[in-house]
Amino acid sequence: MKKIINDPNHVVQDMIKGMVMANPKTVKQLEDTLIIARSEAPIANKVGLVSGGGSGHEPAHAGYVGKGMLDAAVAGEVFTSPTPDQVLEAIKALDSGKGVFLVIKNYTGDVLNFEMAQELAEAEGIKVEKVVVNDDVAVEDSSFTTGRRGIAGTVFVHKIAGAKAESGASLEEVKAVADRVVKNVRSMGMALTPCTVPAAGRPSFQLDENEMEIGIGIHGEPGIERKSIATADEIATELTNKVLEDIEFSIGDDVAVMVNGLGSTPEMELYILNSKVHEILNEKGINVYKTFVGEYMTSLEMAGCSVTLLKLDEELKVLLDAESLAPAFLN
Amino acid sequence: MKKIINDPNHVVQDMIKGMVMANPKTVKQLEDTLIIARSEAPIANKVGLVSGGGSGHEPAHAGYVGKGMLDAAVAGEVFTSPTPDQVLEAIKALDSGKGVFLVIKNYTGDVLNFEMAQELAEAEGIKVEKVVVNDDVAVEDSSFTTGRRGIAGTVFVHKIAGAKAESGASLEEVKAVADRVVKNVRSMGMALTPCTVPAAGRPSFQLDENEMEIGIGIHGEPGIERKSIATADEIATELTNKVLEDIEFSIGDDVAVMVNGLGSTPEMELYILNSKVHEILNEKGINVYKTFVGEYMTSLEMAGCSVTLLKLDEELKVLLDAESLAPAFLN
Repeated sequence: MKKIINDPNHVVQDMIKGMVMANPKTVKQLEDTLIIARSEAPIANKVGLVSGGGSGHEPAHAGYVGKGMLDAAVAGEVFTSPTPDQVLEAIKALDSGKGVFLVIKNYTGDVLNFEMAQELAEAEGIKVEKVVVNDDVAVEDSSFTTGRRGIAGTVFVHKIAGAKAESGASLEEVKAVADRVVKNVRSMGMALTPCTVPAAGRPSFQLDENEMEIGIGIHGEPGIERKSIATADEIATELTNKVLEDIEFSIGDDVAVMVNGLGSTPEMELYILNSKVHEILNEKGINVYKTFVGEYMTSLEMAGCSVTLLKLDEELKVLLDAESLAPAFLN
Repeated sequence: MKKIINDPNHVVQDMIKGMVMANPKTVKQLEDTLIIARSEAPIANKVGLVSGGGSGHEPAHAGYVGKGMLDAAVAGEVFTSPTPDQVLEAIKALDSGKGVFLVIKNYTGDVLNFEMAQELAEAEGIKVEKVVVNDDVAVEDSSFTTGRRGIAGTVFVHKIAGAKAESGASLEEVKAVADRVVKNVRSMGMALTPCTVPAAGRPSFQLDENEMEIGIGIHGEPGIERKSIATADEIATELTNKVLEDIEFSIGDDVAVMVNGLGSTPEMELYILNSKVHEILNEKGINVYKTFVGEYMTSLEMAGCSVTLLKLDEELKVLLDAESLAPAFLN
């Protein structure tokens, strides 16, 4: 294992310290927790937006904490759900009376722990609503998941629900728009290499020298198929078509595109892929409103990518374009 | 070689196509060239800012093209200097009568080709000035370099000279501020793994399973020492101290910090490193004005990092904070 770390069992704490030091004006760490919150939180008369999950997906989720996106991100250990008491802590710290909205990726542990925290918070009189993101079209049910997994499309939920909350919307209004994003966002990924969880010390699975896996999850959960490495154009075609099959598009529809790197794929390769994604959408008469190419939801140093499409209506466009001061999504 | 590409000999052209498709409002490709320019260039009554170099360092340099930073980036093939005629093309396309300023990383090929383009442009009556960035304190003279190499500190030159040019400054004023950045910026890097140039198909060097190289260049040029992997704190200490030895700091000085990932190092590790860099600076009474953690100047999928410090005066702070719409440096 080749990593720039100190103690493999202390990477999350060390990372959070370095994140807060890098962005002292934007974020703070809540004392004795693995929670990063907006420095000015709780914010009066604003729905609090909380997300989080296992670490190792940076910049998700702490990089999305900031004005116009999340109010707090709760970090679990690497690829491990945060505990209910940590999520509860975040809810309590964030609530300004207008309620707290939870954005949860669809993994059994995350759903369980966030829902338990929701119940405990509600028992204390805090209004809590949630959305479960399940944008990955690759497989139904997987290791750690019932139904579809939540992957890079989650970032669009953060952005759009965040902008809605920032505008002063009610908890119900934030939930309505987040539900609409989940209904309209689909993703699919592939990997060329595994990654190594620091505390484990060795890769969680193996891929042969000429092999790739289509439909893999962001923790290396099995995908659809292992096969020989294809060209960028073939990979883009397979991922994009699978996404397009799953959601109804009409000619002239507007979409946001995210071509996301899983960790060690050079930006060069993501741009090469992006070119074919656009070509496919152009051919189908689908209009690309905005494109995001980069690392938004990673799996440590896994090589690979995902393609996300979000079908946009007029309100979603406005919210996507709204200001964000989150370090990993300046807008 | 595991890469998401089509033709290994066509990666730069394919990448540029995908970049322009991703940012159609910000940038354009100059026809029949590997030049990415601001979509509205040439801009009247503004010094044109041109940089570039070999590809494989993305987001450098095309990601820094946009309002407030570069007007154009000239891409060479992977790890290969752009040709003089391409640089000349950029100079001619960018000049609005106020002159063109070149930001060159100190590699023999880059310096030679950019200077040749400068001479040709001057012969056509265009005013051209330049700065050669040599921020890497690791070694004097190296494969491809006489003197010190230019690495991640170059991004600060783009940002600050770009803001100065945007303010309407003269060519001489832009040069003066760029020279001041070069005088005050120092970097040093290390690597855990090599990277593979697509057209070569195999890694350019080898490192053993427990080995790292301190002071390595962004093309894998030899550094100072190969040794067993150290902890993040030890690596941060070695890099930061070497940088600090090379430039005079007084208690209370303000610096900008860049902790740069070389390609496949997870953001988690960069933040862990950042924490120790800050600690060292705090101990010395040096004030961190702003921190940048992420991938700013990469070496394809090399694992490793660099630490850059820029000593700031009041004007440099203002220019660093000025608006930038470049996709890879939104500010």
